[in-house]
Amino acid sequence: MTDAWKSLQGRVSELEALQQVAGLLSWDQQTMMPPGGAAGRGRHQSVLSALSHDKLVADEVGDWLSALEAGPEPLGPVQAASVRKIRRMHDRARCVPTSLVKALAEAGSAGVGAWMEAKQAADFAPFQPALTRIVDLVRETAACYGEADHIYDNLLEEYDPGSTVATLEPMFARLGSELADFVHAVSERHGPAPLELVLDEPGIFSVGERVIAQLGFRTEDGRLDRSEHPFTVGVGPHDVRLTTHGYADDLLGSLTGTIHECGHGMYEQGLADDLLGTGVATAAGVGLHESQSRFWENVIGRSRPFFEWLVGPLREQWPDTDFDVDHLYGAANRVHPSLIRVKADEATYNLHIIVRFRLELALLTGDLQVADLPGAWDDLYDELLGVRPPDPSQGVLQDVHWSHGYFGYFPSYTIGNLYAASFKEAMEADLPGMWDEVARGEFSSVLGWMREKVHHRGHLADAPTIFRDAVGDRDPVADLMAHLRGRHGALAGL
Amino acid sequence: MTDAWKSLQGRVSELEALQQVAGLLSWDQQTMMPPGGAAGRGRHQSVLSALSHDKLVADEVGDWLSALEAGPEPLGPVQAASVRKIRRMHDRARCVPTSLVKALAEAGSAGVGAWMEAKQAADFAPFQPALTRIVDLVRETAACYGEADHIYDNLLEEYDPGSTVATLEPMFARLGSELADFVHAVSERHGPAPLELVLDEPGIFSVGERVIAQLGFRTEDGRLDRSEHPFTVGVGPHDVRLTTHGYADDLLGSLTGTIHECGHGMYEQGLADDLLGTGVATAAGVGLHESQSRFWENVIGRSRPFFEWLVGPLREQWPDTDFDVDHLYGAANRVHPSLIRVKADEATYNLHIIVRFRLELALLTGDLQVADLPGAWDDLYDELLGVRPPDPSQGVLQDVHWSHGYFGYFPSYTIGNLYAASFKEAMEADLPGMWDEVARGEFSSVLGWMREKVHHRGHLADAPTIFRDAVGDRDPVADLMAHLRGRHGALAGL
Repeated sequence: MTDAWKSLQGRVSELEALQQVAGLLSWDQQTMMPPGGAAGRGRHQSVLSALSHDKLVADEVGDWLSALEAGPEPLGPVQAASVRKIRRMHDRARCVPTSLVKALAEAGSAGVGAWMEAKQAADFAPFQPALTRIVDLVRETAACYGEADHIYDNLLEEYDPGSTVATLEPMFARLGSELADFVHAVSERHGPAPLELVLDEPGIFSVGERVIAQLGFRTEDGRLDRSEHPFTVGVGPHDVRLTTHGYADDLLGSLTGTIHECGHGMYEQGLADDLLGTGVATAAGVGLHESQSRFWENVIGRSRPFFEWLVGPLREQWPDTDFDVDHLYGAANRVHPSLIRVKADEATYNLHIIVRFRLELALLTGDLQVADLPGAWDDLYDELLGVRPPDPSQGVLQDVHWSHGYFGYFPSYTIGNLYAASFKEAMEADLPGMWDEVARGEFSSVLGWMREKVHHRGHLADAPTIFRDAVGDRDPVADLMAHLRGRHGALAGL
Repeated sequence: MTDAWKSLQGRVSELEALQQVAGLLSWDQQTMMPPGGAAGRGRHQSVLSALSHDKLVADEVGDWLSALEAGPEPLGPVQAASVRKIRRMHDRARCVPTSLVKALAEAGSAGVGAWMEAKQAADFAPFQPALTRIVDLVRETAACYGEADHIYDNLLEEYDPGSTVATLEPMFARLGSELADFVHAVSERHGPAPLELVLDEPGIFSVGERVIAQLGFRTEDGRLDRSEHPFTVGVGPHDVRLTTHGYADDLLGSLTGTIHECGHGMYEQGLADDLLGTGVATAAGVGLHESQSRFWENVIGRSRPFFEWLVGPLREQWPDTDFDVDHLYGAANRVHPSLIRVKADEATYNLHIIVRFRLELALLTGDLQVADLPGAWDDLYDELLGVRPPDPSQGVLQDVHWSHGYFGYFPSYTIGNLYAASFKEAMEADLPGMWDEVARGEFSSVLGWMREKVHHRGHLADAPTIFRDAVGDRDPVADLMAHLRGRHGALAGL
C-alpha cells in the first residue's frame, strides 16, 4: 500500500502543479498578456489540459487506487479523502468517450460565437440550434457518468460534489416563494438613497488594497491587480491572485467586488499546506467557495458595523468628500427587482438563480425544449421577480454559461448565499463580540472561525458535510431569510 | 514519412508550448509573483521540466526521426532543419544518465549556496569544494556527449551550436591582444565626462517605453516591466516580455539596458510564425541572440546619430533639464578597465569574457585545478586589463554562472559583439542612408535588414552559417576593432 500511496501522491503533485500553472496562465491572460499572445495562450492551455487528462486517466492511477481501496492496512483520514477524490476524478474523466468530450468542446466553442451574435442582435434564433446541440451533448455526457437519482445530480457533482436535486429542489422552492414575497414587500417601500459620488479609480484601487489587507488577505502570499471582470486564481495557498475593476462613479460596487474576490482569495490562502500533494488541498466545491466570497461581500462587507470602520479609510483617501455611515450602509443595500443577474442586489440575486435552476432541470429532463426556453424564461421572471425582459438580450441571452455547456453551475451561487447565512448565525453564537470587532476593523476572529471550520478542511469532506460540521443542524433557508429580513426589512421600515 | 512528420510536429508543438509556459513562469517569478509563491513555483518548473524531458527522450521520437532521416522522400529545407535540431536535442538529452543530470542539478544547487557564502565572505575557500565537484560533473557530462575535437565543444554546443574551440580560440586570442593594447592606449587619455544627472525612475521608464516602440518593438506583441535584473522572455513571437531596471542617477545605464533587452525582444518577435511547431522557430544560439542585444545597445544605442534623435524625447520628458548631444554621446562611451564584468564598457567587456574563456578551457582540459583558479584569475586580469582584484568577491567570485554549472556560456557574449560589429559593416554597405535615418529616429530599414538576414531564419541553420550568409566573408575581429577604434579612439583623440 505504501508504494501505491507514494506513486499516487507523486501523480497528484504533478496534476496539482499543472492545474496551478493553468490558473496562472489564465490570470496572466486577463491581466498582463499583450493582445498578440492570445493564439499562443490557447495552445498552452490545450497542451496542459491534454497532459493533465492523460495523467489522470492513466491505467496505473486506477491500479494505485484499487490497491489502496483493497489494501489490508486501513487508510488514514487524509489518505481516505484523497483516494475518494482521485477515484471520483479518475472515473469521471474515463467514463466520457474522448469523441464526446471533443464534440462538447467544439459545440461550446461554436456556442459562444452563436451566443454573442444572438445577444448582439437581441434575437434568440441564431443561438437556438447551437444551444440545442449543447443541451443534447450535455445530457449525453451526464448519462455517461452512470446511474443517479436525477440526471442533473451528475452535473452538480462536477461543481458541487455532495449536492443533489433531492436536497436543492425543496430548499430552492421554499426560498423562491418566501423571497418573492419579501422582495415584493420591500420594493414597494421607498428604499435607501443611492450614493451619487464620482471619485477616482486609483483611489478606489488603493482603498481596495487597504481593505483586503485589513480583512486578512496575506499580501506576501498574493496580489491584487486590475482586470475587465474581477476574478480570483489560487496558484497555491501562498500565491493567490485577485483582480478588481474600479469604477469612478461606483465606489460601493467596486469595493464590494474587491471584497467578494478577497473572500475567495482568503479561502485559497487558508487551504492547509500539509494537504498539498493529496488532491484535497482544494475548495470542497464551487458553492462553498461562493459562500466565502458572499460572506465577506454581503454579510460583513454590507453590514453597518463594517461601514463604521470603512468610513475612516474613505475619509483618509478623500479628505474633501463627505462620507456618512448610514448613507453608505443604505446605499449598499438597496433592493430592487431587475432583469440582469450580475447587477442584482443580495436579496433578489437568488431569484435570478432559481429561475436558471428550474430551467436547467427542465431542459435536462426533457420537460422543456430549447425552442420554448425564451418564453419560459420570461414567464419565470414575471412570476418570481415581477419583471419581464423587453428582449432576449436582457433575458435568456444575458449569461455566457450555457453557451459553454456549463449546466449545473448556477445553483452554486445560491448555495453560497445559503451557507453564508448559516455561517453568520453560527458565528454570532460562537463569537458574541464579533460585530463590535468588525466596527473596529478587527476581522481576525471572524477569519479564524472560517479558517478552522472551512478553509483548513480543504476537500477532506464534501461541502454539505463541512457545512453541517460547522453550523450544526441549522436551516439555511430560514437563516438567509432572517438575514435579509433583519437587514433589508429594517432599512425598508418593514 | 508523412505520418512520422506529423507525429514529430505534434510532439514538437507540445515541447514548444511547455517551454513557452516555463518562460512565462520565470517572467512571472521575477516581476509579479508574491514572495510566498517561491516554493510552489519551484515545483511547477520541475514538473514542467520533467515532462518536457520525458516527451523529448521518448523512444517514439527516435523512431520518427529515423523514419524521416531514412525516408525515400527528400526532406524540404524546414523539415531537414527540424529533423537535425530535434535529433540533436533528443540524442543529447538521452545520452546523459539521469543520475548524472540529478547529481549536477544538486551540485549546482549546493554550488549557488556555497558561492553566495563565499562571495559574502570575500573568500574563495567555502566555494572551492563545491566548484571542484561541479567541474568534475561538467567534465563527466561533456564526455557523455561523445567524441569531439575538444571536450569544450560539447559544452558550446548547448549554447552556441556550430561554434567550436578551433574557431573561437584564435579569434579570441587576436581580439584579446589587439584589444588589450587599444584599451591601454585609450584609457591613458583623458576620457569623456560622465553624465551627472539625477532624474526620476518613472520618467526613465517612460522614455524607455517610448524608445523601444520607436526602435520597432511591437507593443501589441509584448510588454515592458520592471525587475531587479533586466531580462527578456519570448513566450512566442507574439508575446515577448522585456524588463528593465531604472536608476534615477543612471539615465544612460538604465536606457542602454532597456535597449539591450529590446534587441533580444525584437529577435524573438521576428521569429517566423510559419516555423512554429518545427522546433526551429527559435534563436540559432545564445551568441546570435546576444548579437542582437549588443547591436541595438551598442552599435545603434551608443552612436552619436542615436543621441541626435534621443535628445528630443529626453527634452520632452524633462523640459527643465539641459541635454547636450555630445555630452550624452561621450558619457555613454567612456572606456575604462575595471574589475567587474557587468559594469564594463563595450570595449573592455570582451577582455572580461576572454579571461573566463581561457579559464574554462583550462579547467575543462584539466590544465588548471580549481584550487589554482583564484590566482590564475587575478593574473589574467593583470595581463589583459591591467587591474588586479583586491579580493575574490571582486574577482573570481563575481559571476553566478559557474556555481550553476554553466560552462560554455560566457563566450556567447563576445561572439555577440563580434557578430554585431560585422552586421554593422555589412548593413552600412547595404543601407547607405542608415545613419541619417537613425538620427531622425527611423529604424525600420535597420530592423528590416535584421529581420530578413537573421530573425526570420530562426534556427534553420546554425549561427555561424546565418552570420556568413548575412555578411559574407568578413573578419569579425577586424570589424569589432574598427568599430571600437572609430568610436572610442576618436573620442579619446587618438
